[in-house]
Amino acid sequence: MAAAWHSTLDFMLSTKADGETILKGLQSIFQEQGMAEPVDTGFANLRIYSHRLELLDLQSYDGDAQGKEEIDSLLNKGEERIKELSQDSSWQMRQLPPIVPGGAIHRYWPTADGLLVEYNIDEVVYDEDSPYQNIKILHSKQFGNILILSGNVNLAESDLTYTWAIMGSGKVCIGKDVLILGARDGGILCEIAELKLKMVTMIEIDEMVIDGCRKYMWKTCGDVQYCIPVLKRYFLRLIPHLSMKVLKQDGNSVNLTEALSLYEEQLGCLYCPLEFSKEIVCVSSYLELWVFYTVWKKAKPRRQISSNPVCCK
Amino acid sequence: MAAAWHSTLDFMLSTKADGETILKGLQSIFQEQGMAEPVDTGFANLRIYSHRLELLDLQSYDGDAQGKEEIDSLLNKGEERIKELSQDSSWQMRQLPPIVPGGAIHRYWPTADGLLVEYNIDEVVYDEDSPYQNIKILHSKQFGNILILSGNVNLAESDLTYTWAIMGSGKVCIGKDVLILGARDGGILCEIAELKLKMVTMIEIDEMVIDGCRKYMWKTCGDVQYCIPVLKRYFLRLIPHLSMKVLKQDGNSVNLTEALSLYEEQLGCLYCPLEFSKEIVCVSSYLELWVFYTVWKKAKPRRQISSNPVCCK
Repeated sequence: MAAAWHSTLDFMLSTKADGETILKGLQSIFQEQGMAEPVDTGFANLRIYSHRLELLDLQSYDGDAQGKEEIDSLLNKGEERIKELSQDSSWQMRQLPPIVPGGAIHRYWPTADGLLVEYNIDEVVYDEDSPYQNIKILHSKQFGNILILSGNVNLAESDLTYTWAIMGSGKVCIGKDVLILGARDGGILCEIAELKLKMVTMIEIDEMVIDGCRKYMWKTCGDVQYCIPVLKRYFLRLIPHLSMKVLKQDGNSVNLTEALSLYEEQLGCLYCPLEFSKEIVCVSSYLELWVFYTVWKKAKPRRQISSNPVCCK
Repeated sequence: MAAAWHSTLDFMLSTKADGETILKGLQSIFQEQGMAEPVDTGFANLRIYSHRLELLDLQSYDGDAQGKEEIDSLLNKGEERIKELSQDSSWQMRQLPPIVPGGAIHRYWPTADGLLVEYNIDEVVYDEDSPYQNIKILHSKQFGNILILSGNVNLAESDLTYTWAIMGSGKVCIGKDVLILGARDGGILCEIAELKLKMVTMIEIDEMVIDGCRKYMWKTCGDVQYCIPVLKRYFLRLIPHLSMKVLKQDGNSVNLTEALSLYEEQLGCLYCPLEFSKEIVCVSSYLELWVFYTVWKKAKPRRQISSNPVCCK
């Protein structure tokens, strides 16, 4: 499967340095590598912007056996030459890890708020389209198998913190009926089954998610059974409806302050008075801090002017 | 301060699709933007590799007021055009978040094992060179202030999990003399001071680290005092020596399996028999799982053949 190496080296020229001299200096390096056109060839670009920022991009197709080694060697040579040619030690030079677009295994899954992050994915374990979404389970050296639904990282085998935070650490469940909306990997059911509960109902619209997870995410889901969606039977339907309306599709990252404020505002507008607490945890495979809400009815509701649901605009 | 936007769109051509047609189709988009040379201009590169992987790179200098918007618009137009021109719905197209090299605030701090990750840094709080290292404290929307020593992320205000894991959750400290080697932000001292201890000695070679942290990392370090290095007075010097010898400079990420095995092997070779336990936690600002060791002398040492230290090769 095709992939490419793409490395970037950017550096600031000091006011003393001469862009033309550096360009000529680098030229010979590229010529040594058999690149006749050192600027803007298919493999190397050197850009000198008006504010003296320079960018050196190198690309190599990984079908070339020594592609990556050549790129590394070329970047190091370029860095050395620039150091020699810039007559000021105060320049800054930064070499990013190589970006590897393409390939059978995609390594880049941005965070909920659009930051670029790379995962050390080494295997596609499961990749199917259900009637609802694309379902991937990818193996990462760091986080174990990761469930990815339509391009969004959902849960990894390392994410017990997520499961426990979404359960309110189990404290609020004991002796209660529990409804799990969106079972996904079954991890919550697996953990909650250990507690003293009256009844647990788990709902998941997509059977294929449960099937994939039972096979490949068994570290989190254990031996779960799946059931037919019964969402409409439950009084709680207003809350997920509002949650979905106010929360961005991307989730409840601690960074999405506007969406979180809106969610809290909407909680204050449901038909009965509510209280809530928040817990912030690091969900390892999300590479982010996430906010989890525990919401409960107030024990003694305030006197209400109208019994109809009131909703903020 | 200069910065540049660099976005990458990569896609796989289906076997039916014609690279030449797609190239011509894109050409008109670039021409509409006033780019006379659509292939390999300073701003747009389209590469078609022999295995049909294509890469479209766009760059814009952020001195252009509308640079980023133009890039986004161009990428979207390119994506639409490629969809129209490729006569197969099975192609894959991936647009990475834009890479923003340069700029006063560097957003990319690779993980211990070299994965590319972007932080939402919005302020350089402190940036000084001490006699030992470069010390940066950067503010991140997600993790609060982050201490970065010579380019390596050390600790953020969100990283209480790190501090507690390195303290063995405080369990092993009670009633003991405690020596903290490498105080850094003072977070361990701040937390450990709450426990019932006999005596705590904190050692940090670099006064400027403590000074910077006292001003800008007070959420972790509280009101710590610093002391003069007294490392040589302590019998423990062999352990840090060996630790430094066997652990990679980059740290104890769960991925560095070889370094961790080597560390455990070396622990077995110290002059007295040891036991250890391991805890794996997600250190939020590291975007990684890390392994923390608790090491203790065996209560009843095995009979030794020689009283001299024995070390494995």
